[in-house]
Amino acid sequence: MSTIPKGHPRYASLLRRERLVEGWRKGLAVPQGLIAHGRGEAFDYLLGEQTQPFAGRAIAAAARALTGAAHPVLAINGNVASLCPEAVAQLASTIPATVEINLFHRTGARSRKLARHLRAAGVTHLVGTRTDARLPGLRGGRASCTRRGLLSADVVLVAVEDGDRTEALRRLGKTVVAVDLNPLSRTARSATITIVDEVTRALPALATEVGRLRRRAKPVTRAQPFDNRRNLSAALRFLRRRLLALAQPARERAP
Amino acid sequence: MSTIPKGHPRYASLLRRERLVEGWRKGLAVPQGLIAHGRGEAFDYLLGEQTQPFAGRAIAAAARALTGAAHPVLAINGNVASLCPEAVAQLASTIPATVEINLFHRTGARSRKLARHLRAAGVTHLVGTRTDARLPGLRGGRASCTRRGLLSADVVLVAVEDGDRTEALRRLGKTVVAVDLNPLSRTARSATITIVDEVTRALPALATEVGRLRRRAKPVTRAQPFDNRRNLSAALRFLRRRLLALAQPARERAP
Repeated sequence: MSTIPKGHPRYASLLRRERLVEGWRKGLAVPQGLIAHGRGEAFDYLLGEQTQPFAGRAIAAAARALTGAAHPVLAINGNVASLCPEAVAQLASTIPATVEINLFHRTGARSRKLARHLRAAGVTHLVGTRTDARLPGLRGGRASCTRRGLLSADVVLVAVEDGDRTEALRRLGKTVVAVDLNPLSRTARSATITIVDEVTRALPALATEVGRLRRRAKPVTRAQPFDNRRNLSAALRFLRRRLLALAQPARERAP
Repeated sequence: MSTIPKGHPRYASLLRRERLVEGWRKGLAVPQGLIAHGRGEAFDYLLGEQTQPFAGRAIAAAARALTGAAHPVLAINGNVASLCPEAVAQLASTIPATVEINLFHRTGARSRKLARHLRAAGVTHLVGTRTDARLPGLRGGRASCTRRGLLSADVVLVAVEDGDRTEALRRLGKTVVAVDLNPLSRTARSATITIVDEVTRALPALATEVGRLRRRAKPVTRAQPFDNRRNLSAALRFLRRRLLALAQPARERAP
């Protein structure tokens, strides 16, 4: 299907883009999601399109929080479902966690399509095709959620999430694990643990880490300290160094 | 039509996004254009979503180049036509300049839709619904252009343009004014004058500056010096400082 040459320096990134456009054609992702993906691409470019040490530390902390949770929920939107449904299924079954379909632009038809797509990839505990609760402090469709899912969760994983919604979840006292490529976004800054990494790399790495914790004899204690502000600062320092490094060839090569 | 609350901290950016999605619904913009827009958004976020001094300097130089040109052409793609057709019309009539429909993913139907859209916004001198020339050194549809427009222009304005095409225009000896939010892109680095700014802010500012020059008694001399490399370095230094400054409140404000 893909026409991208395997040797292209940005093969993985271009393949993700095709997968998302395919998800949009199937009615899983929305045009706004394509734009949000592009924004992420710019940050991933600056990250060198690799999981960096600060992301690894956040993944380890997130694995502890999710493994120690009483009621963990993965909030999955159209972009994430388009890009890596298998990784969602694998993470949900390893924890184990409930998956909630979490749409900023929600329609019944789209929720059902996403449910079919996620179930086909192996997701079993799925809620959100119908919503029956609202997140306090939000207006319109963006407040919609489920009682069995987001509203009663103690630990929530969100990926590429709107800042308003992340803040609403935090106000409810929930531990929020966010996957967000922009360390400056409101989601990144208001989450409890922010994984500054591309979601198709972060979710499999998180599943691996959860599996490792599950196999340990000692029970996981959830309340291990994690300084999100400090970790975000490390991400920002990395981006600044990258901009400096990338600027050197620009000065030499410009005509 | 829009459901974005006016008080949202990123209202202008979200409104632009809706306008682009609307353009895509009308068949003006393509999914690849939505992703490209998102990439730009990330850089605009780092720019503080404002026209910065280095952009102001480039706008002043671009106004001189366009006002002093023998045959100025504005190359307009689906994103720019969707976002700010009125600003394109205003700039074209103030210079005055020919507008060429300039598509990376070109179809006859899309060109005609764009022409109708731009004419409805007030564009009068329009070419490119049919192409009759090719830019040397490019393959496929991306080489298509018109003899009366791009091929015979001495000064060309491109916005959110592909690097290959910008380089092809430069090889033909043309003065290229580029509007590009990424100061590291090949277009930014190979253009004669790069305006590192968001296109819906840059085009009206450019029209204002051209109008100011037109009202002056003294004729505009085109060959004023402008050091694009130096100006791009200023843009990169600004981005690095912003990452540093943005990191501070993140440390204070994060919960």
